[in-house]
Amino acid sequence: MQRAIELARQSANPSPNPRVGCVLISPDGDVVGEGWHDGPDRPHAEVVAITEAGQRAAGATAVVTLEPCNHTGRTGPCVQALVDAGVGRVIYGQSDPNPEAAGGAGQLRAAGIQTEGGLMAAEARDLNYTWSFAMEHGRPWVRWKTAATLDGRVAAVDGSSRWITGEEAREDVHLLRAEADAVMVGTGTLFSDDPELTCRLPEVQRQPLRVVVGQRAVPAKARIRLAEPMSAFVHVPNRQPEYALAELRRRGVHSVLLEGGPTLARAFLKAGLVDSITWYCAPLLLGAGREVVPSLGIASLAAAMRFKVSQLRQVGDDVRIDMEPDPGLDGS
Amino acid sequence: MQRAIELARQSANPSPNPRVGCVLISPDGDVVGEGWHDGPDRPHAEVVAITEAGQRAAGATAVVTLEPCNHTGRTGPCVQALVDAGVGRVIYGQSDPNPEAAGGAGQLRAAGIQTEGGLMAAEARDLNYTWSFAMEHGRPWVRWKTAATLDGRVAAVDGSSRWITGEEAREDVHLLRAEADAVMVGTGTLFSDDPELTCRLPEVQRQPLRVVVGQRAVPAKARIRLAEPMSAFVHVPNRQPEYALAELRRRGVHSVLLEGGPTLARAFLKAGLVDSITWYCAPLLLGAGREVVPSLGIASLAAAMRFKVSQLRQVGDDVRIDMEPDPGLDGS
Repeated sequence: MQRAIELARQSANPSPNPRVGCVLISPDGDVVGEGWHDGPDRPHAEVVAITEAGQRAAGATAVVTLEPCNHTGRTGPCVQALVDAGVGRVIYGQSDPNPEAAGGAGQLRAAGIQTEGGLMAAEARDLNYTWSFAMEHGRPWVRWKTAATLDGRVAAVDGSSRWITGEEAREDVHLLRAEADAVMVGTGTLFSDDPELTCRLPEVQRQPLRVVVGQRAVPAKARIRLAEPMSAFVHVPNRQPEYALAELRRRGVHSVLLEGGPTLARAFLKAGLVDSITWYCAPLLLGAGREVVPSLGIASLAAAMRFKVSQLRQVGDDVRIDMEPDPGLDGS
Repeated sequence: MQRAIELARQSANPSPNPRVGCVLISPDGDVVGEGWHDGPDRPHAEVVAITEAGQRAAGATAVVTLEPCNHTGRTGPCVQALVDAGVGRVIYGQSDPNPEAAGGAGQLRAAGIQTEGGLMAAEARDLNYTWSFAMEHGRPWVRWKTAATLDGRVAAVDGSSRWITGEEAREDVHLLRAEADAVMVGTGTLFSDDPELTCRLPEVQRQPLRVVVGQRAVPAKARIRLAEPMSAFVHVPNRQPEYALAELRRRGVHSVLLEGGPTLARAFLKAGLVDSITWYCAPLLLGAGREVVPSLGIASLAAAMRFKVSQLRQVGDDVRIDMEPDPGLDGS
C-alpha cells in the first residue's frame, strides 16, 4: 500500500478526479503492474496497472489506494476491468466517498473476488483531502485566506492596501492558489483591487478556476477577464455562500480559496462555511482603516468565533497562522 | 570570561544594579577567587573574589564582566579595592555605560595596572540588557504586552474581556512580570479591570514595582492597593510617557512592562517609547468591540508603524509574537 500511495503522488492534481495509485502483485510476490491516475479522460490507476501486467494480471492481487469505482463516467468502471483481467484479490485503502461511484467492493465480492478495505485508510484519504471532504459533505472545502495588520486592518484610512504583507507572503499565496480548484473574491474586491487571481508560479500546471461572486456585472476591462486565455473565469451573480458553493460543486470544484473581501468572508463565516483559515499577520499597526471582518453580530466574548491553530510560521517578515474552526470550544 | 559570565548569572536580578561576575587567576593559572554581585548593599563581584583570594590576589589577573566601577555608592569603588589588593592585570567585558560609575579603566591604568576591555563584550552586555539600555538612553526599556483577537479586539461589544487568551498565555505574562522592574497600567485599565498586577509565580523572589499612570485617584479599595504588603505600588498622576518614565528612572527602574490599556499604549507608541512588543494573539474573531489601539492618526499604509518579528511561538492555544520597532522600514 505504501508503494500504491507513492504512485498516487506521481499525479500533482488530477482534479476533478482523486489521486489513485495501484500495484498488481503476482502470487509469487512479484510486482507485475503499476499505475496511477493522471486526470480526466486518462485511464484509471487500476486500468494502467492491468495493461502493464497483461496476462500476468490473472490471479494477481491488486493493491489500490481507493475502493475501485463502480460507475461509468468518462471511463468504464474499474470493477469490470479487474473482473475481466481475472484479478484474484483486491486490497484497498479508502472507501469510495463518492455516492455515484461507491459500491465497488460489493460488486467485486459478488464477482467472487476476495476484497478487503481500510488498509492505511487515513494515509490514503490524505492523498485526496479536499476531494474526500467534498464527496462527504456535498460541497467544496473552503479555505479563507486573509492578510491583515496586527490590529486587524486590511486597508488604511485612505484605502491604501498594497502591500500589507511582504513579497514572501504574497508568493506564498500563489502556492495556496496552485493547491485550490477555485479562487474566489466578491465584486467589492473586484472593484477595489482589480485582481487577476492567477497563480504566478512558473512550475504550476493547472490554473485554478477564478470566481467572482456578487450581483454587480464584471467590467469588460477587468483584469480577471483579460487573464482569461490563461485560466477560466466564472461570475456567480449571487452572494449567498451556499448558492456559490453549489454552483462550483456542479463544476467539479472540490476546494475553494476564498480571498475576500471582508463582506464575502463574513457571509461565509456566519454561514459556518469556512473550513480552514490561512491568516497572514503583518507586523504593522494602523490604528484605523478597513476592518478584516465587519461586524459579525457578536456581542460578548463568550460568543466569539473560535479557531484552533494547526500551523504557525514566519513567512518573510510576516506571520502565517493556519487555523481550523474549533468545534470543541465554539459556542455557536 | 566565560566563567565570569557564568558567575554573573548566579544572581537572578540584583536590580537596580547590574549582574557582574569576577574570576581572579594567579600568575600560575590557578583560580584563586570568584565572585558575583547579589544586589544592593551586597559587595560587588570584584570585592567578593578578592576576599576569597586573600593574599593570593596580589599579582593576579582579574577577569570581570563589567568595567570595574569608579564611584562610591552604597559600596566603595571597585577600582580602589583592586588597587589595594595588588592585582596585576584587569580584563573586562562591557565598558561601564553608567555615567556616574564610568572611568574605572582609566583609573586602573593610572594606578599602573595593565587593563584591557571588550572581551566578549556583547555577551557581557546581554547579562544586563535592560540595565545597559537604561544607562545608555537615560530611561527605562519598555516592553508593551497586549492580548487581542485576530481582528485586533481587546474586549467584546458588551465589555467582556476575560479571558481573551487561555491559561497558558496568562501564566506566560507572569514570567514577563517577573523579568520587569516595573509593571504599568493606566487609570482606565485600573477602573475597568481592577488588576492586582503582582507576579503570581511561586518561585519569584522579587515583585515588580506596580505603577498606575493617570490623573484619576486610585480608590482605597483597588486591588492594586490591597496587594501592597506583597509588593510596592506607585501612582504617577501624569499620563505623559516621558514624565512617567523619568519618574520611574528616578526610582531605579530599568525595565517596564506596559500592560495597557489602549490609550496609554497609544501614548507610548506615538512617543516612540515602545522598545519591544509581546503580542498574544488569540485565535478568535469578534468583528466588533474595543480596539487594541485607538486611532494613531495614520492615514496611509506607507505611514504604518512597522515592527520586526524577533520570536514566534504558540503558548497554549494562543500565538505569541515578539517584535521590535523596525527602524529600517519605519517611515516616521
